Amino acid sequence: MTRSDTAPPVPARSDVRVAHADLAACTARILAARGLAPDRADAAAAALCHGDLTGVRSHGLANLARIYLPALHSGRIDPAAEPRVLSDLGACLLVDARRALGLWQAGAAVDLAVERARHHGAGLVWVRGATHFGCAGHHAARAAEHGMVGIVAANCGRQRIAPPPGGRRPLLGTNPLAVAAPALPGRPFVLDMSTTAVPTGRVREAARAGRAIPEGWLADDLGRPVTDPAAFDRGEAHLRWLGQGEGAYKGFGLGLAVEVLAALVPGAGLGPWPDPGAGGAAPADDDIGFLAAAFAPAALRAGFADDARTLFAEVLACPPTDPASPVRYPGWPEAERAAEHRRTGVPLAEAVYRELAAAAAAAGTAAPALIGGV
Amino acid sequence: MTRSDTAPPVPARSDVRVAHADLAACTARILAARGLAPDRADAAAAALCHGDLTGVRSHGLANLARIYLPALHSGRIDPAAEPRVLSDLGACLLVDARRALGLWQAGAAVDLAVERARHHGAGLVWVRGATHFGCAGHHAARAAEHGMVGIVAANCGRQRIAPPPGGRRPLLGTNPLAVAAPALPGRPFVLDMSTTAVPTGRVREAARAGRAIPEGWLADDLGRPVTDPAAFDRGEAHLRWLGQGEGAYKGFGLGLAVEVLAALVPGAGLGPWPDPGAGGAAPADDDIGFLAAAFAPAALRAGFADDARTLFAEVLACPPTDPASPVRYPGWPEAERAAEHRRTGVPLAEAVYRELAAAAAAAGTAAPALIGGV
Repeated sequence: MTRSDTAPPVPARSDVRVAHADLAACTARILAARGLAPDRADAAAAALCHGDLTGVRSHGLANLARIYLPALHSGRIDPAAEPRVLSDLGACLLVDARRALGLWQAGAAVDLAVERARHHGAGLVWVRGATHFGCAGHHAARAAEHGMVGIVAANCGRQRIAPPPGGRRPLLGTNPLAVAAPALPGRPFVLDMSTTAVPTGRVREAARAGRAIPEGWLADDLGRPVTDPAAFDRGEAHLRWLGQGEGAYKGFGLGLAVEVLAALVPGAGLGPWPDPGAGGAAPADDDIGFLAAAFAPAALRAGFADDARTLFAEVLACPPTDPASPVRYPGWPEAERAAEHRRTGVPLAEAVYRELAAAAAAAGTAAPALIGGV
Repeated sequence: MTRSDTAPPVPARSDVRVAHADLAACTARILAARGLAPDRADAAAAALCHGDLTGVRSHGLANLARIYLPALHSGRIDPAAEPRVLSDLGACLLVDARRALGLWQAGAAVDLAVERARHHGAGLVWVRGATHFGCAGHHAARAAEHGMVGIVAANCGRQRIAPPPGGRRPLLGTNPLAVAAPALPGRPFVLDMSTTAVPTGRVREAARAGRAIPEGWLADDLGRPVTDPAAFDRGEAHLRWLGQGEGAYKGFGLGLAVEVLAALVPGAGLGPWPDPGAGGAAPADDDIGFLAAAFAPAALRAGFADDARTLFAEVLACPPTDPASPVRYPGWPEAERAAEHRRTGVPLAEAVYRELAAAAAAAGTAAPALIGGV
């Protein structure tokens, strides 16, 4: 079983490999050169490299030059921002991230939720004014390391990517949802999903590769299927929701539920409002809202960790339809790939490595050494 | 837009109609005759009639004779149970429902969550030892009446209905998830969904009608599509998860996330364990676990109710692909149908009315008067 949002982890011929520690250290130096404090740069680099480490390339180093460096340059992300607590009720907090780098700040919000959950059973940190944070599952999994259940749900700020079923105009983003929990040792349960059929990265990946896409991913203004992935960035097609046929109302409903929980509750930017109008500029993912929650079963009852191991061991023990493909749970394949890449090096597309090397040079630091081609 | 899990609300020729107040009062009398205290019988009757009132017949009066009366008779549901608080941390509680009737007790758990959320920003009531509670959305919507966001998520106790993708053996139930929030006046947002492609009620409904079902609903032991709905109750087909193709890993992941949040955290019965074995009796939905949560945005910030109205008004204002089908959000069509049925009477299948009349006679009380055929 693979994470539904990820590309198949098949390294391309043009991939290069670098040691994970070198990659993370170089990324941290690049971010520090942009004004991040060292501990924040380290945490952000770990979050960004997590994408490539686990095979989720759409949320990895490819976004350094595409999203994070331009946003740090333009001021949409403030490297020195000090998030401010606006309300503190003990178990619940409202935080203004003040455009802090989400790659670091989302993890800090989960850590705060974990701390509160120790005393209250649950910690819920609602954040507004946030920025792009990479893999939601990476942050949610911090709670699982403490024996807790973690949830990270985010909207995409004012960005509009997918229309409601039966609607002509995009209203919401891909609104990711991650749930993590302790499972087998070293193999936590980590569900990390967009509420759309796929995230935008999958569509752009197919466009770059010149591959047609399946019918369920994109639709035009009238709801008709589109299989040319390049139509998405031409504005001729929109993402569809998770769920086939009438089931798309569940995907849309989940996307709306994330919009409510992650953005409406803390008062962050919303996809549907204000409407930029027909001639207006496409709104960006500014003023993102997210919820970082941790639940501490050990505060409520004994035996949770043992029960979690039993539950997930039974999932793994389910007889497979194909004996060559054992049953897995979300998080397992990513942990397997991470372990392999820690041993053998992290594969990167050559173009991404070149972008990283250029960013390193601009920061006056060395690029990670190549281990070799694949 | 319609609730994805519901049958199309087209009354059959053989439907009869009864006044909603009469229907609820008769149902309450039947439950009271089985030992429910009057206020609990009233709340349970309202929850059960909610299915027919809103057009979600799979969770309505049809279940009185199929699920609730037999379980009250056999002792699987204890009409006089007093749920016990096992842990109380302020914002979070762990409750043993002690086999109380879920139709009443789930609403009481939401009310308790609402009360705690007033002071702590969030109230989270984890329940084990619970029984079938009908429509999750009906209970979650109680929080929306107080201006809060409500969540109700439940597993199906030890019942096993759907196998993991790539697995041969069912491990989990349909694991419903409901999220409710204030939206337009009298029209709350209520997402109420199974994490499987459809709930079992939709399959059985097609089997009764002799209709073939679409390919995405059922699969055999080897994962091949099954379009004969009767194969489900013959044990020859299992439910599939929400999400087409590889997207099924999201549906399965959501089902597992609900199993974790709703049953593993409170220590309720689990689908995957203990394995009944090849010759074992099919485990029933005993020792259900659920989470009833309420979040109080007003405790964190001002302006939430206005922002909610703005957000959902923008959804309704989205230009439709078909001018005759305006865009709706989950909860709107159900509220429309409920308003209509309150005016014109609640349609019931004739067979369901006959069962109700028989149960009323057994309880020594009158059946609701017929308004007439449709």
